[in-house]
Amino acid sequence: MSPHFIRRKIPITIITRIFPFPSLPCYTVSMLNPTMYLNSIVLVQYCMSSISNMETALLGLLSERPMYPYEIEKNVWEHDMRYWTEISLSSIYKVLEKLEKKLLVDVNLTVTDTNKVKKIYSITEKGKKELKERIVEIMSELEVSIHQIDLALANLSILTTEEVNEVLGKYLKSIDERITCYKELEKYLLEHECAVGNLALSKRRQFLMKAEREWVISFLDEFNTESGEESNE
Amino acid sequence: MSPHFIRRKIPITIITRIFPFPSLPCYTVSMLNPTMYLNSIVLVQYCMSSISNMETALLGLLSERPMYPYEIEKNVWEHDMRYWTEISLSSIYKVLEKLEKKLLVDVNLTVTDTNKVKKIYSITEKGKKELKERIVEIMSELEVSIHQIDLALANLSILTTEEVNEVLGKYLKSIDERITCYKELEKYLLEHECAVGNLALSKRRQFLMKAEREWVISFLDEFNTESGEESNE
Repeated sequence: MSPHFIRRKIPITIITRIFPFPSLPCYTVSMLNPTMYLNSIVLVQYCMSSISNMETALLGLLSERPMYPYEIEKNVWEHDMRYWTEISLSSIYKVLEKLEKKLLVDVNLTVTDTNKVKKIYSITEKGKKELKERIVEIMSELEVSIHQIDLALANLSILTTEEVNEVLGKYLKSIDERITCYKELEKYLLEHECAVGNLALSKRRQFLMKAEREWVISFLDEFNTESGEESNE
Repeated sequence: MSPHFIRRKIPITIITRIFPFPSLPCYTVSMLNPTMYLNSIVLVQYCMSSISNMETALLGLLSERPMYPYEIEKNVWEHDMRYWTEISLSSIYKVLEKLEKKLLVDVNLTVTDTNKVKKIYSITEKGKKELKERIVEIMSELEVSIHQIDLALANLSILTTEEVNEVLGKYLKSIDERITCYKELEKYLLEHECAVGNLALSKRRQFLMKAEREWVISFLDEFNTESGEESNE
């Protein structure tokens, strides 16, 4: 047994079906610049569609109604969007500019109640089309990304049996804490009569975290059985 | 009901307990440079420890035995490491240099069988200590990251009931395909008598994907019930 994965190579056919990156044309983009490699998953997703997740997030907001830039900012802030999608308050203007160049949003000048001239952004027909296409694209296929725990598991042999049990005990505790938080979020969203799609932000994570919990328990069981057998040999 | 999340802000206390970024000192790093925001999760994780996941991956390899650079490359390739951790073949030398500067690896010159002088890398005591610390750190706390499906779910109102059912049907199909792949990987790893830690790469994902499957089914059930009620009103 090798402490790292396996000595022999996994047939590339298995691994590329699990992580189908190399078949995508944009994969080469990340290979050209090693510093971009960390972003490869984001890049791949970006390249698959003509709009990025940041652009999608803003188009989604503007699909509700035309907005002044400060309203967009306020919405990003109030919906806590930077916590559940790749957007930052500081990138909003840059993204709006991109959307304008791509003809996905229109910019008009309006006169406010206080007689000031202000820019107002609205989504175009082309923007609505691209937004819908991107939403459909995201929801049509499971996202597979890198989970750093795989790196720790591949190096598990450097820890003793006791240490593995101790750290995974902490891992279980952190899962339970997060489940409690997501339950609290669900309660909050229910109280505010959130749509079923938005409620899913808390519900889906609870399903995943419970599964992570079950995995840890089954893993520890298997691990301790194997360790017990080895120490008896 | 709002098409986006909820109109009122989620109390910051709930959201920061779920995504505890702002409390970390390095959070400010990502705020200073908007282009770095996409990397914020990676950054946060990077800042928490003194070594990055790429450095951890290479230290893990060298913890087995000292290696020539071409052996390291061969291992990264043969263990398909670029698919399950953030490493690319092109970044190996840069990372080795960093590890050398941090005194985590030693570089020695050796004479090979064919009388050539070659560099050989070995892990130092300090390197072993940091590797272990990082592995313990990763395994002590659940990783919470951004899932792009949340972005689609927040914009669900732009799709019709039929469209939601159709795309989530495809999503279910893609989950099933991945589960099949991971089962195949598990079989392969078992046949090659892989350690229990390495087997977990395929087993853990199966737990998560089955949970994702259950979530989709429960979500569709809830969504269709709500849509049915609305159309009857």
